[in-house]
Amino acid sequence: MLEELKQKVLEANLLLPKYGLVKFTWGNVSEIDRESGLVVIKPSGVEYDGMKAEDMVVVDLDGNVVEGHYKPSSDTPTHLELYKAFAEVGGIVHTHSKWAASFAQAGKGVIPYGTTQGDYFYGEIPCTRKMTPEEIAGEYEKETGTVIIERFKGIDPMSIPAVLVHSHGPFTWGKDAFDAVHNSVVLEEAAFMNFHTVMLNPGIAPIQQELLDKHYLRKHGKNAYYGQG
Amino acid sequence: MLEELKQKVLEANLLLPKYGLVKFTWGNVSEIDRESGLVVIKPSGVEYDGMKAEDMVVVDLDGNVVEGHYKPSSDTPTHLELYKAFAEVGGIVHTHSKWAASFAQAGKGVIPYGTTQGDYFYGEIPCTRKMTPEEIAGEYEKETGTVIIERFKGIDPMSIPAVLVHSHGPFTWGKDAFDAVHNSVVLEEAAFMNFHTVMLNPGIAPIQQELLDKHYLRKHGKNAYYGQG
Amino acid sequence: MLEELKQKVLEANLLLPKYGLVKFTWGNVSEIDRESGLVVIKPSGVEYDGMKAEDMVVVDLDGNVVEGHYKPSSDTPTHLELYKAFAEVGGIVHTHSKWAASFAQAGKGVIPYGTTQGDYFYGEIPCTRKMTPEEIAGEYEKETGTVIIERFKGIDPMSIPAVLVHSHGPFTWGKDAFDAVHNSVVLEEAAFMNFHTVMLNPGIAPIQQELLDKHYLRKHGKNAYYGQG
Amino acid sequence: MLEELKQKVLEANLLLPKYGLVKFTWGNVSEIDRESGLVVIKPSGVEYDGMKAEDMVVVDLDGNVVEGHYKPSSDTPTHLELYKAFAEVGGIVHTHSKWAASFAQAGKGVIPYGTTQGDYFYGEIPCTRKMTPEEIAGEYEKETGTVIIERFKGIDPMSIPAVLVHSHGPFTWGKDAFDAVHNSVVLEEAAFMNFHTVMLNPGIAPIQQELLDKHYLRKHGKNAYYGQG
Repeated sequence: MLEELKQKVLEANLLLPKYGLVKFTWGNVSEIDRESGLVVIKPSGVEYDGMKAEDMVVVDLDGNVVEGHYKPSSDTPTHLELYKAFAEVGGIVHTHSKWAASFAQAGKGVIPYGTTQGDYFYGEIPCTRKMTPEEIAGEYEKETGTVIIERFKGIDPMSIPAVLVHSHGPFTWGKDAFDAVHNSVVLEEAAFMNFHTVMLNPGIAPIQQELLDKHYLRKHGKNAYYGQG
Repeated sequence: MLEELKQKVLEANLLLPKYGLVKFTWGNVSEIDRESGLVVIKPSGVEYDGMKAEDMVVVDLDGNVVEGHYKPSSDTPTHLELYKAFAEVGGIVHTHSKWAASFAQAGKGVIPYGTTQGDYFYGEIPCTRKMTPEEIAGEYEKETGTVIIERFKGIDPMSIPAVLVHSHGPFTWGKDAFDAVHNSVVLEEAAFMNFHTVMLNPGIAPIQQELLDKHYLRKHGKNAYYGQG
Repeated sequence: MLEELKQKVLEANLLLPKYGLVKFTWGNVSEIDRESGLVVIKPSGVEYDGMKAEDMVVVDLDGNVVEGHYKPSSDTPTHLELYKAFAEVGGIVHTHSKWAASFAQAGKGVIPYGTTQGDYFYGEIPCTRKMTPEEIAGEYEKETGTVIIERFKGIDPMSIPAVLVHSHGPFTWGKDAFDAVHNSVVLEEAAFMNFHTVMLNPGIAPIQQELLDKHYLRKHGKNAYYGQG
Repeated sequence: MLEELKQKVLEANLLLPKYGLVKFTWGNVSEIDRESGLVVIKPSGVEYDGMKAEDMVVVDLDGNVVEGHYKPSSDTPTHLELYKAFAEVGGIVHTHSKWAASFAQAGKGVIPYGTTQGDYFYGEIPCTRKMTPEEIAGEYEKETGTVIIERFKGIDPMSIPAVLVHSHGPFTWGKDAFDAVHNSVVLEEAAFMNFHTVMLNPGIAPIQQELLDKHYLRKHGKNAYYGQG
């Protein structure tokens, strides 16, 4: 069942340690098969070394395990909320990558100060509000998704494919699992640069809107001209 | 004697350079066999390259060398004090890992600002007081243990499995040698994130107690649901 | 056509990931054959892994593709402006290397505080002004070159072989492609050191002119005595 | 001539890129044969890759090349001054390692805040004064040595085996070439920790004298008990 997708999700998960985004079993990647409504996700707490495609877990959008000999990632309900709310999202990543997590802990979004961020994110990468004691005590992982979705009211998730969950860490997404991992790497670079930009020049203004438009739109949308497309 | 344990302690020691926690011969790992009361520990000042299981030193809880052709780590008396005071501790690590050591030098504990720390440490990773001239001039390595134990009055060492010794560096522990190494890695990540969190937002409050409870307890204790257990 | 130069430009491009200056397809290197007026440059948005000499694109100084099965780097018009304005430049590099890009985002030049920078750069590595909305909306990549050239009015580009484009990132150059890559690496080191120098001592004065003269001139010009030349 | 020593000096030089202390051809290591008064040193501006023992240059204490097909490092006169002034020094290293160079650029010594530094350096690693225009215009590399020696008036160079040359970078030394490289690595760690300590706690006091005594003297001198000696 979904053998190719399991292989792809495995490979996307293995990119996380390769790019230095995770330690140990931290982090997880999923991808959805929109036709069947099934999601393939990393198992919970299993080591990256020796992980196989058959270890991936298949769940439906209600969180029922459809196939797999492991329990799915404990963050699965967050992924599912995002797939349900963001119709164009095909892949999702969660990590505790250190620069992005530092911003999440500081409760600060990653404001764009340059074209590195602007090439992939059409504005600030937002930080959610803190969760309430009720949300934490309730269906916590599901509510994590709810809080993200609330933060994206009025924001196109495909143009800002990442969020920082307050006091926690980043989720990123994209059109598929690889794209979501790619955005995790860019987020980490952008967070690094934002930190040092602000240390060097605390009063610096965000990137000009015109420059942001230019860079984002030369890579995205119908007038894009970057790459071989 | 304790051949399996020596092999395990060797492997745990070799993880220190692998995870970038030590330079040269800095750092040491031990594990206790609670049944016999014997401790296996790295020899003093010996290089990691080419180190063998048979180079590990076996000592009793009074510090007598029971087996081994090398002198044990000079920090052995600290390990022994901790094994005697903390009955559930099975493995101990000492390093000068650079982020944790920077906090130790600053005399500051690592306050939890997010779930990365909260997943493994149920609160602040404390820093000891400075040692007195008398403690330093006396049985220094043993007194280092005493000062750590004093700092843990009222704290469950299994829920906060690390400490920063003032002006020195971290000790971490766990249920065995591998678990103690694991906690060293997490401490280093947590210290990195704490540093940058505070630089970004000096007035930020620690993680909400509810969120700390949630994350720590979903991984530890009888209601844990993270992983495959 | 220009087979040797394509091989050289390929190798120079592959040095960018090797030295940790780029992620993914970010960054590009070119070299000009001054005799024919033809420029060899990396293709746009193509991965470094598996890139071959034959994938390099040959363009003339008006930007016409003379040979190549790919589109040239989208930054090609910037390279061409610089080759036209700076007669001694033989190779050009563009990256988003993280330390240099942080300075570009902060709108700050890299002031020389020591001999590491002074060995290769005879003064401050300048940051351009912001581009105007008209420049951004017009021939943006070409105007990027114009703004760099404007900033170098009165500066010998061979003695300061790098610039930071405001809110964007660095361009470096040199007598050929390898030399330009070399200067990218030095810029990144110099930016790292400048950042930490200023954090340690915000009021520190730039390097003395005499020391800058000494270091730059012992490596460059007719009285150089460094190396085996 | 001195074949064994050339091999050793080669190996010590190759440790510099291995430990991440140098880029390109930056940095150099030498060792003196005190019996003959001859010094073996790295050639000037030659790449580490492919460097051979026979490429090392033998000079006497007046700077005359006694053997070698290359010119010696341009920093040779500095090494020679130090060998002449510091009778116990057997090996010398110069690098632009980034943390130590940042302190040199900031004109700040590395104050000891913890035992990592205290295990190898019996106090502050000092920074020299700026050199005068006359010194720079004169025999610059020799005068660099003079300024270092002036700074060590009243300091035992074997107990503080490193210095930061103002606006430049570190020199370290030791009983032989390997020991000098070892001290370069420790200096870089100590500078990293010092930087972050001060950022975390600007008013922190240096390490207590008693603790510094304890750590330095348990590794050095007649009452040392660290290691297998």
